Amino acid sequence: MSDALNMSRRIRRTPYTSRIEKNGVSEFTVVNHMLLPKSFQTTIEDDFWHLRSNVQIWDVSCQRQVEIIGADAEKLLQCMTPRDISICQIGQCMYIPIIDNHGGLINDPILLKLGGDHFWLSIADSDLLLFAKGISIGMGLDVEVNEPDVSPLAIQGPKSEALLAELFGEDIRDIGYFKFGWIEFEGTRQLISRTGYSTQVGFEIFLNGFELGEKLWDLIWEAGKKFNLLPGCPNLIDRIEGGLLSYGNDITRANNPLEIGLGKYCKLDGSIDYFGRENLQKIANDGVKRSIRGVLFNGDRCPTCVVPWPVLVDDRKVGQVTSAIWSPRLEANVGISMIDRDFWDHGQKIIIQMPEKKNSIGEVLDLPFE
Amino acid sequence: MSDALNMSRRIRRTPYTSRIEKNGVSEFTVVNHMLLPKSFQTTIEDDFWHLRSNVQIWDVSCQRQVEIIGADAEKLLQCMTPRDISICQIGQCMYIPIIDNHGGLINDPILLKLGGDHFWLSIADSDLLLFAKGISIGMGLDVEVNEPDVSPLAIQGPKSEALLAELFGEDIRDIGYFKFGWIEFEGTRQLISRTGYSTQVGFEIFLNGFELGEKLWDLIWEAGKKFNLLPGCPNLIDRIEGGLLSYGNDITRANNPLEIGLGKYCKLDGSIDYFGRENLQKIANDGVKRSIRGVLFNGDRCPTCVVPWPVLVDDRKVGQVTSAIWSPRLEANVGISMIDRDFWDHGQKIIIQMPEKKNSIGEVLDLPFE
Repeated sequence: MSDALNMSRRIRRTPYTSRIEKNGVSEFTVVNHMLLPKSFQTTIEDDFWHLRSNVQIWDVSCQRQVEIIGADAEKLLQCMTPRDISICQIGQCMYIPIIDNHGGLINDPILLKLGGDHFWLSIADSDLLLFAKGISIGMGLDVEVNEPDVSPLAIQGPKSEALLAELFGEDIRDIGYFKFGWIEFEGTRQLISRTGYSTQVGFEIFLNGFELGEKLWDLIWEAGKKFNLLPGCPNLIDRIEGGLLSYGNDITRANNPLEIGLGKYCKLDGSIDYFGRENLQKIANDGVKRSIRGVLFNGDRCPTCVVPWPVLVDDRKVGQVTSAIWSPRLEANVGISMIDRDFWDHGQKIIIQMPEKKNSIGEVLDLPFE
Repeated sequence: MSDALNMSRRIRRTPYTSRIEKNGVSEFTVVNHMLLPKSFQTTIEDDFWHLRSNVQIWDVSCQRQVEIIGADAEKLLQCMTPRDISICQIGQCMYIPIIDNHGGLINDPILLKLGGDHFWLSIADSDLLLFAKGISIGMGLDVEVNEPDVSPLAIQGPKSEALLAELFGEDIRDIGYFKFGWIEFEGTRQLISRTGYSTQVGFEIFLNGFELGEKLWDLIWEAGKKFNLLPGCPNLIDRIEGGLLSYGNDITRANNPLEIGLGKYCKLDGSIDYFGRENLQKIANDGVKRSIRGVLFNGDRCPTCVVPWPVLVDDRKVGQVTSAIWSPRLEANVGISMIDRDFWDHGQKIIIQMPEKKNSIGEVLDLPFE
């Protein structure tokens, strides 16, 4: 599809948009009321191969931060997630499902602990700020909830560490996985984490200060030339193969964390309390009825998945595919699918019903893809 | 700008998208994680003239409903808005600003009262559902907050009443402004209101049931031919001339209802209570420091306003334009702008600073434009 995106202030530009445009962006999507570049001058398959052996610079400013600060900050956070956050250390990142009173997923952000009563949630596509604010107002908590002027820039790929060490010092090599540190830039102190929405080595710089965006981009761009740096974006092939879920695509409020493989992050023993706990416990006791799986299927390159595709076994609907693409590595189509319990075993044969009555034969696989 | 919009399940299609595509949609935007068509095969100026003398069919499914139902429904609603909703009757629509504890605007929906403890909020572009859900959970209210399967279809323009009366009966002529009634369609009962995001006569059908969308569109489309019906969308010229504000464009959380002309909807005398009341009272006591105004300015057709344009008086910044377009009726550019107190009088001369150092001479006007 090639309809144009109508622009307005409401579809917010990022600190890096001018540079993205200079680099020939050809497609955007909208996440958190902000532009996310989705395509440049190369194919998604070329991008995939490039990402696996080089380094890319991604404008992921749309991963907005929800800042929670104040005496009740940790209390507010624990109310919203089944994961025990009391064990989170300053300097640590934690992937935490956020749920409502029914156990439905509101968002699946990365928590960054900046201080004892100071946190950021680096969010997927829903206004988590409004949920957190609503709860804090409703409970009368001593906490402020805001969106700071922070716009993450991701540097992803195996050469990312060498590139960033050259620019910001060897210390960044010591940052552990899902940990963060600080770099100096233009007289400011900026947060850098070893995180990113890819299966490759990577970092994210949480740039604080819109006006510094072009300078940061240009600095990395120049130094990146010898590392074969290219502009990129979260790559759908890499994401699906790696089993990285997308809120709004693979997960909605209709899903609970237990059925999307996050049981390990759900404290169900009553040792911590949060909204939705009893419902999650009931779901766990009854047994999860469906779960996220990979699907591998034949045929030509599949179309873009813009509505869920039914998954059939013996003409019975047993699930739905919500993200899919051709994998040049596996030479087959790959997808992410919710699959009913009786049919979720690795190797289960399935039919995937694509639009215009195109059916494809495939099988269920565990995530991530081998 | 003409970058393409990358499609995925997360950018939700509507019950009418297939018909919109058949009619040659050329631009979309994204509102509430859903497609909103923004341009067809005609110019926005031709659309403007057509809307003023004919009838148009708009896919405004993105005006999602937040359903609030239960014993504490009215209590939850009153917590979120400074407008006194106790006077709202069943069958009535009410424009209500929703604010946070600081008085900042969260959304500016239309409230529809379906029953004593049953309401819909027809929302602008923010996840108001999450705010309402957060407050209800935080306060432990006896209420459910959900997004029903309701997708509004707007029929706007002077011939809309005749068209709809022919299809659904003469009773729809009796529906008063900002009131709603019910029509029969395919064995279902559907809500129809005399509302719409235009300055013209118009109705909105709140279609309950995604699967009925194409049938409803086709029915109206066929009957509309003799009324010169065309597909359309909220028209930027009509919207700006009419002073209809757009959340995310002209209004954000940084604004309060008093400065966007909604003082008349803010109960400040203490007779009702809501979060943010003390802050609004303080703002009112101190005197509002800036306010929404129209601006009229010279020059060629202005570009699209994608970042706020500074408004200057004697080289001093006194405001910002957030929406603007050429008006063929007024033969000048028109815009919506926040303007500081000392400069907001009708007739104030201003300079508007557009991108690439293009300046234009203009003046401040009251809204709506004459």
